[in-house]
Amino acid sequence: MRRTVFYVSDSTGITAETIGHSILAQFEGLRFDTHRIPFVDSPEKAQAAALRIKTALAQNGGERPIVINTVMDSVLNEILSTSGALMLEVFAPFIGPLEDELGRKRSGAVNRAHGLVDFAKYETRINATNYALAHDDGVNVNYADADVVLVGVSRSGKTPTCLYMALHFGVKAANYPLTEEDLQQQELPVLLRPFRERLFGLTIDAQRLMQIRNERRPGSRYATLEQCSWELAQADKLMRRENIQALNTTHTSIEEIGSKILSQLGIEKHMF
Amino acid sequence: MRRTVFYVSDSTGITAETIGHSILAQFEGLRFDTHRIPFVDSPEKAQAAALRIKTALAQNGGERPIVINTVMDSVLNEILSTSGALMLEVFAPFIGPLEDELGRKRSGAVNRAHGLVDFAKYETRINATNYALAHDDGVNVNYADADVVLVGVSRSGKTPTCLYMALHFGVKAANYPLTEEDLQQQELPVLLRPFRERLFGLTIDAQRLMQIRNERRPGSRYATLEQCSWELAQADKLMRRENIQALNTTHTSIEEIGSKILSQLGIEKHMF
Repeated sequence: MRRTVFYVSDSTGITAETIGHSILAQFEGLRFDTHRIPFVDSPEKAQAAALRIKTALAQNGGERPIVINTVMDSVLNEILSTSGALMLEVFAPFIGPLEDELGRKRSGAVNRAHGLVDFAKYETRINATNYALAHDDGVNVNYADADVVLVGVSRSGKTPTCLYMALHFGVKAANYPLTEEDLQQQELPVLLRPFRERLFGLTIDAQRLMQIRNERRPGSRYATLEQCSWELAQADKLMRRENIQALNTTHTSIEEIGSKILSQLGIEKHMF
Repeated sequence: MRRTVFYVSDSTGITAETIGHSILAQFEGLRFDTHRIPFVDSPEKAQAAALRIKTALAQNGGERPIVINTVMDSVLNEILSTSGALMLEVFAPFIGPLEDELGRKRSGAVNRAHGLVDFAKYETRINATNYALAHDDGVNVNYADADVVLVGVSRSGKTPTCLYMALHFGVKAANYPLTEEDLQQQELPVLLRPFRERLFGLTIDAQRLMQIRNERRPGSRYATLEQCSWELAQADKLMRRENIQALNTTHTSIEEIGSKILSQLGIEKHMF
């Protein structure tokens, strides 16, 4: 039996979904059917959302849905509360304590989390994304402007991690794929040496790397367990020899990899 | 006078920062110094975090910091509460009501939001990212596998939006830059026509486009207001004629653009 969950938001619904996912994961063994209702920013949309939730309630034989709700506006929240669901308003518990602490009432502005765009921040993110795209293969690349340079064997997760750090945090992240020559010679390529303190290594379990490479080039030498194991062992040795911090990406999400790299390199970038 | 805010998390801190940003934006005119303390997942790290917060309190002449806290574990939260800050625990208010609703106690598992990785989902995101990278310029491209194809003039925001949808939602997003020839002829390129229902247009204000293009190619014809205005007007006409939904990206964040596109095309993809 699955419980129905709605993530309702006056913006993208990403925050509601993230919080909901964390809280529901606390109830192991239960399964949930989740639905996102984003951009609920008018009474009409709130009414439509309430109706959709009510309909689910009727279809579930009366078991009420759970709503994780990041709508700020209290008028819209009142409309949503007519849905008959268990309503968990994410922001509500914190407004009162903050009003007391800050000695003033909230201004009642609409949720601005993803609303008004700060052009400078936006530009930083876009420029960082373009930077990551242009510094993705280690060929004819100058790393002088890089905040971070990821090193690792092919398919260890460098490209998506660079793009994530760029898009999310506006960090200029380049990446350098260790070549067989680098691995054999056990030496950092000359063009990386001046930027040693910005280097960060990505590793991955050999079995997993084999899987990933096999999807890309099935049956190739590149995708054999033997080749993957050799490359990873050599890369590991090189990183230790060169004193490059490294992270194993096998059981780690892109978000976590990106945040850990920034945290370990001491780069504090803010999303807003 | 600025108030000090800490985002404390047992994972990346992204959720804490997002929620904090939304709530603090409700107090217009106040300014906050924000700091992220991620990966607080042991008593030692909780003690270190509490100490850092206490130090900030002492330095602020006794005005206590505000802590937005997404740590799940109650032992760690007790340690954090010794910091003397205003402690806003994001998950705490919802655990009780959910336990009542679901008729069982939470299992007390560590925050798994970004922790355990679902390989299938991870692969979907990585494959989607590779797809976006390989389908970024409209040259020699087959759109048959695309979930979405973004169309728009150069620098209207297509590439970062595609990468965001790929990384965040695992959506296969291609993009096609409208050429001067397309704009002049007022016709959709032949290779896009079979995928009409997956097309989505991005537009942008001419002034803003001019700024962006000038950063890229200062003083070029490409970056003149005249050229930008002409391209945007032609693109607008073409999209209306071809019945392609479109969104103006000027005042919209990448998150919001991505979510709106998926919402308007009726694609419901989940992050987890």
